[in-house]
Amino acid sequence: MAEPITVDDPADPRLHDYTGLTDVELRRRREPAEGLFIAEGEKVIRRAGEAGYAMRSMLLSAKWVDAMRDVIDRATAPVYVVEPALAEQVTGYHVHRGALASMQRAPLPSAPEVLRTARRVVVMESVNDHTNIGAIFRSAAALGMDAVLLSPDCADPLYRRSVKVSMGAVFSVPYARLDTWPKGLEAVREAGFELLALTPGEKARTLDEVAPHRMDRVALMLGAEGAGLSDRALAAADQWVRIPMSHGVDSLNVGAAAAVAFYAVATGRPRE
Amino acid sequence: MAEPITVDDPADPRLHDYTGLTDVELRRRREPAEGLFIAEGEKVIRRAGEAGYAMRSMLLSAKWVDAMRDVIDRATAPVYVVEPALAEQVTGYHVHRGALASMQRAPLPSAPEVLRTARRVVVMESVNDHTNIGAIFRSAAALGMDAVLLSPDCADPLYRRSVKVSMGAVFSVPYARLDTWPKGLEAVREAGFELLALTPGEKARTLDEVAPHRMDRVALMLGAEGAGLSDRALAAADQWVRIPMSHGVDSLNVGAAAAVAFYAVATGRPRE
Repeated sequence: MAEPITVDDPADPRLHDYTGLTDVELRRRREPAEGLFIAEGEKVIRRAGEAGYAMRSMLLSAKWVDAMRDVIDRATAPVYVVEPALAEQVTGYHVHRGALASMQRAPLPSAPEVLRTARRVVVMESVNDHTNIGAIFRSAAALGMDAVLLSPDCADPLYRRSVKVSMGAVFSVPYARLDTWPKGLEAVREAGFELLALTPGEKARTLDEVAPHRMDRVALMLGAEGAGLSDRALAAADQWVRIPMSHGVDSLNVGAAAAVAFYAVATGRPRE
Repeated sequence: MAEPITVDDPADPRLHDYTGLTDVELRRRREPAEGLFIAEGEKVIRRAGEAGYAMRSMLLSAKWVDAMRDVIDRATAPVYVVEPALAEQVTGYHVHRGALASMQRAPLPSAPEVLRTARRVVVMESVNDHTNIGAIFRSAAALGMDAVLLSPDCADPLYRRSVKVSMGAVFSVPYARLDTWPKGLEAVREAGFELLALTPGEKARTLDEVAPHRMDRVALMLGAEGAGLSDRALAAADQWVRIPMSHGVDSLNVGAAAAVAFYAVATGRPRE
């Protein structure tokens, strides 16, 4: 059990994991390099622990000590108690969720490992927006997708904002990064998955045609907001699928589109 | 046709419609009281015009004059050209989309008017987040919902952020505000709509059971992120419906949940 340690010097090296949290570019480089990620808020910190991530340290204001008492009692890592103003000085923002934890990253599984037990996977290409990544993981977990594969240039699911928006789903849905793109998709097909590319193009068939019932061994490919899937990715797919649109609208937000597609392939009408 | 007018005094009263745009509380009161709303960016400004809203004025930086030339040529309202720094001084933020228009609000239709021609409507209760409102309108338009009804305490769909997130769908999907809640729902039922309340409760039936095919004359009720529908609203519904969830996840983001429900009731498998 950890005895909370009061820290009152913002330059204390023990707080190094939490410095400059609002500098996205800095943190994007630092966190993977230093093998850590930041969990924010009571619920997300608990979920990271339940998912088996080891805690490096925790930083919280005094009024959160009671709410986090059981987590503190189980912690073997140091727990730092600081004034809210000091937390703001260190991190660069007002930590209104009151508690941050620095967690140790675990090695990512390989794509074949992830695919071995999955029935339905999400494949993201070039999704760089941390909010969208988090939202897609949250919907994937809720709507019956078993795993996620990322193109090499997708943003980090363990970045603080992604973790928060996902409500911790980045901990529960296994994911892997493909080493090559789109060549890495061949391994997905060889593992027995049909590659469905979600695209608004007229040449695509509608979801209700392609997925009249819950599907198995399907890999649903999603591109970034705005740009969508690249031509190379579309060419690598087995089939193009689109969400039928009304009222002359040409696109959905990528999070909404993903949720609809997950529902259609994973939790739509069970096969009779 | 309007001849662009260069303005270089941030206190110029002609720029009054654009002052303090980052002060949400102020703008929430001012805009409905003064009968205006703000459209931001080329695409949204065009859509507001196409939807028939009258322009009060437009504010843009010099480099946007060419891109907006046709809009300027058609405009009878004054068009103000300002330096980006002045735009920031007036509005309170860096207007990176380069163009703002102040548009005249039109009287809202009544609920019966909106219901007369709709087959599927969204009913929102206490949705106060402008981003969520915008996202729900965008999905509603794309996924075949014909109209929106708002409880008295929902936020304003014409607030700048909602308009932007909706990509202009707040202009194309007719909406009305119910005067009383939940009593106002009676008029919806009397107009022949079945009231389906979306709720994660175990007592709810799953979407695929309730909506095995595209539905007609259905009013889909949504509550706010976190709180969900109130007990009073749930009691006023005809039926409770839930999205089946996996992996022990207890909820979806309200935007994702709305998109899935719209797809299921409006664009799912056509009735055979």
